[in-house]
Amino acid sequence: MYDILIIGAGPAGVSAGVYAVSRGMRALILEREQVGGTIGKVSIVTHYTGQQPRETGASFAARMKDQALQAGVEILYADVEQVCLTGEIKTVATNKGVFRAKRIILANGCTPRRLGIPGEAELWGKGMGMNAARDAAAYTGKEVFVVGGADGAVKEALYLASFARKVTLIHVEDQLGCIAEFRRKAAAAANISLRLGAQLMAIYGHDQPERLKIADLRTNRIETVDAPGCGIFLYAGAVPNTALYPELTLENGYIPTNERMETALPGVYAAGDIRVKEVRQVATAVADGAIAAIRAAAY
Amino acid sequence: MYDILIIGAGPAGVSAGVYAVSRGMRALILEREQVGGTIGKVSIVTHYTGQQPRETGASFAARMKDQALQAGVEILYADVEQVCLTGEIKTVATNKGVFRAKRIILANGCTPRRLGIPGEAELWGKGMGMNAARDAAAYTGKEVFVVGGADGAVKEALYLASFARKVTLIHVEDQLGCIAEFRRKAAAAANISLRLGAQLMAIYGHDQPERLKIADLRTNRIETVDAPGCGIFLYAGAVPNTALYPELTLENGYIPTNERMETALPGVYAAGDIRVKEVRQVATAVADGAIAAIRAAAY
Repeated sequence: MYDILIIGAGPAGVSAGVYAVSRGMRALILEREQVGGTIGKVSIVTHYTGQQPRETGASFAARMKDQALQAGVEILYADVEQVCLTGEIKTVATNKGVFRAKRIILANGCTPRRLGIPGEAELWGKGMGMNAARDAAAYTGKEVFVVGGADGAVKEALYLASFARKVTLIHVEDQLGCIAEFRRKAAAAANISLRLGAQLMAIYGHDQPERLKIADLRTNRIETVDAPGCGIFLYAGAVPNTALYPELTLENGYIPTNERMETALPGVYAAGDIRVKEVRQVATAVADGAIAAIRAAAY
Repeated sequence: MYDILIIGAGPAGVSAGVYAVSRGMRALILEREQVGGTIGKVSIVTHYTGQQPRETGASFAARMKDQALQAGVEILYADVEQVCLTGEIKTVATNKGVFRAKRIILANGCTPRRLGIPGEAELWGKGMGMNAARDAAAYTGKEVFVVGGADGAVKEALYLASFARKVTLIHVEDQLGCIAEFRRKAAAAANISLRLGAQLMAIYGHDQPERLKIADLRTNRIETVDAPGCGIFLYAGAVPNTALYPELTLENGYIPTNERMETALPGVYAAGDIRVKEVRQVATAVADGAIAAIRAAAY
């Protein structure tokens, strides 16, 4: 029996674990993949106070993992299959056993949204749905497409532009939705071009993408673009991982909390990208985790 | 004319500056002493996700400063003398000139509380009011007293214990008010002793402390302790630096905000330890700064 169970080992979960242990709690983080969450997969960490200069998601995640283990947080890599949040004892059933505790912190964030278009599933991992941090070097001198126009998309387009011959940003809105810093840098990059008011409709190819179908949403014209061997990188929003929590009433899929990270259920806290909030950044996830653990330890 | 003025270069102010610039704002931080705030003066940074292992306050502050300057934040070392927050344009008068902007973020935190006891002022810096991070080595093999019992006090007592021959924690409450981790480590340290329910009443000496007067609050007995050449370290609470802001209605000296870090005055934000909040940690200060700057940039 643990004092606190934490689902998810991103910044919110790791922060919660470190704070829980500092308050004398025995804490277990359950993680499906690896420590780091969304930020662990980015090409470069930006704007987080105290980060290393030009820090990669991978190095940030590695330091987070060391920090958690050093603090005495236990981490188990397991798939969470069912969660019971009602009642005094919370239960989490995983493929590696069932865990119980009086307090639980839900910190399992979001998953990048897929497009649901023809060719996406068939070419997934074979040119479609690539990860800039991991795959950029493999596209050195080649052509890539980035789908999305918010911070994450433009940041990765900038990173890809230092490898690829040509980067095309495909974004449904008429303007990029990113911060001024990234917009300025994208405009200054000679090999980044924008397709605004545009939507990727389909991908054709067998072992690699050969052609893309792109709709111009202003003219409703559909263009077929030849791009054999190109890479397609999706940063077009994210979906909160809340399917496990039917006991909670959600808002647009996210978990409502108060400022103390308390959900509507006693002993159940939510922290990071998974909760209803305005600013989704590493900085706010880490604060959420600290607050949730401090409150949970006092519960 | 700047887009945003920020008062204070601790974690909240630096985070605000970095985020403000990323949103295309020209941002100026006004700082009285040096970049780092309270955390910049601690012996060791703890529990902040992504920090370096065994990181000192000084190295954390140095990285914060580099990060801010690298991002394009301007920092001016100046004493703020008068602030006008009412009206569309906010004005900050300093000993190095007057600055104006439509948006201002108040992030100038707290100052450690002094005791106001006989001998404190006379011996200040000569054994009284020392800083563990800076002065611990000078007390190698000597006797030190730490006043306070919350996290900051016990953390620095633990640090001092690896230098000093003997560390005495003087705390008015009957129990330490720190987290379990620090309480456990203090109990395990052979050269730390606790004087609980006790209060430092006076210090005697000329060029160094010679004797301390300590009251036992349970028996009302006052004891005189001979400790020639000892060091006395104050970590007994902090006072919010809000005297500059008579235009704001305060709560116990702190600035009330909503979750967006908005104060009652349009265009005026507060972030970090200076605002009304439950959890005062680097993590929450950095989140506050990010949120304040994002909101201010959208203002």
